[in-house]
Amino acid sequence: MSDPPKSVLARGLRVLDAFGPADVDLTLAQLAARTGLPKPTVHRLVGELVSWGGLERSDEGYRLGMALFVLGQRVPRQRGLREAALPYLEDLYEATHENIHLTVFDSTDTLFLEKVTGRRSMPIVSRVGGRLPAHCTASGKVFLALGPPAYLRRVVRDGLRRLTPKTIVLPGLLRQDLARTLDRGYGINREESETGVVAVAAPVRDRRSNVIAAISIAGSAHRLDLERLAPAVRTAALSLSRVLAREPAN
Amino acid sequence: MSDPPKSVLARGLRVLDAFGPADVDLTLAQLAARTGLPKPTVHRLVGELVSWGGLERSDEGYRLGMALFVLGQRVPRQRGLREAALPYLEDLYEATHENIHLTVFDSTDTLFLEKVTGRRSMPIVSRVGGRLPAHCTASGKVFLALGPPAYLRRVVRDGLRRLTPKTIVLPGLLRQDLARTLDRGYGINREESETGVVAVAAPVRDRRSNVIAAISIAGSAHRLDLERLAPAVRTAALSLSRVLAREPAN
Repeated sequence: MSDPPKSVLARGLRVLDAFGPADVDLTLAQLAARTGLPKPTVHRLVGELVSWGGLERSDEGYRLGMALFVLGQRVPRQRGLREAALPYLEDLYEATHENIHLTVFDSTDTLFLEKVTGRRSMPIVSRVGGRLPAHCTASGKVFLALGPPAYLRRVVRDGLRRLTPKTIVLPGLLRQDLARTLDRGYGINREESETGVVAVAAPVRDRRSNVIAAISIAGSAHRLDLERLAPAVRTAALSLSRVLAREPAN
Repeated sequence: MSDPPKSVLARGLRVLDAFGPADVDLTLAQLAARTGLPKPTVHRLVGELVSWGGLERSDEGYRLGMALFVLGQRVPRQRGLREAALPYLEDLYEATHENIHLTVFDSTDTLFLEKVTGRRSMPIVSRVGGRLPAHCTASGKVFLALGPPAYLRRVVRDGLRRLTPKTIVLPGLLRQDLARTLDRGYGINREESETGVVAVAAPVRDRRSNVIAAISIAGSAHRLDLERLAPAVRTAALSLSRVLAREPAN
């Protein structure tokens, strides 16, 4: 991490940011090391975060607290979209029993807003609130092909990271794939984010026809027929777009 | 709200807390009024919260930002439970097409961790991250009847708020209802939280047999046969408890 910030608020927020996607408990010493702040400072900040509810004390140290979950659920950019999408996601799940995602573009990533999955779905790495680089997901290709050109520039400038042997890491090849995505109207990922996993994604548009989200189906490379599933994903995404066009923009 | 806190961190957190469950945009003036902080102070705090990602600028002011959603999804108390529960919730949804909830007890409330709902489900007030008073929900009665006695003491001390004409507001009557809940092993809500809505809930236990969550089905008072649905909810809750007993405690 960069030098610790001077402001007390920024320092407190950095303590929260010290918790990564897979962390449960962190000790005071770990928090000090990760934030670059002195232990007494961390101790004081942690006390305030605990009384707010953003941290909870545990046997092994501290963990993120329920207040953050509750506050996170109030974030408008995901709340309205997720509530409107849920019935369509459930329909897709019931028809396929695969992993169904609702995603948005964030920075250079596909950010997972919702995931519907069940006993018969193939276990895959995606998780709600988690991210994958946009260039190697079906949803991400939808955002890069149909969204503003700045998205693709940002992703290419950042470098196309390899996640599997099939990840597209050459900008020229990615552009070809995005041209096909634009042409078909849906994005496809063939084991480019996770070996053995394929996906198909379609765009969700707001009333001005901007692509604001995507719906995808992901599952086993041996089982999923992406071309056959594409119409179902597109239908769900179109239905959701129609609902969103009727609602006041959030 | 009480007097504004002195600490800069607590003041910044109070700005986040100014956003209620139904708020989208708040102006600087609204934030100053709700936090009791001077406008220039709020302006400075808001700047820091925006650069962190916990607030986003909008045309009408400020709204909660995606960083809070992402962080909220990392809260261990809900994450492991929700991911383990999802397949069972999906099964219940598919079997009933009603509103399926995963809840925990928090303070004196039933806090909704997950909600599975679809096109055929009756629209009801519950929302993920939202709360209802424990004494008038099926899940809440499970927590009060099967959880530590301190739960019920806290709820009674707080006063039994009336939400509908059928809400149980007398401690003696609530105790009778909880005795029946204990006896049956599942909780029932007959239009006690929302007119026209009934629900049935069963306990989810950890490896030490403590009740840590509940699963419920909620829907139309005219359509739902709670006694018929109870075995399904109990089976789902027992299956989830068995899975949790095998996993390391979080």
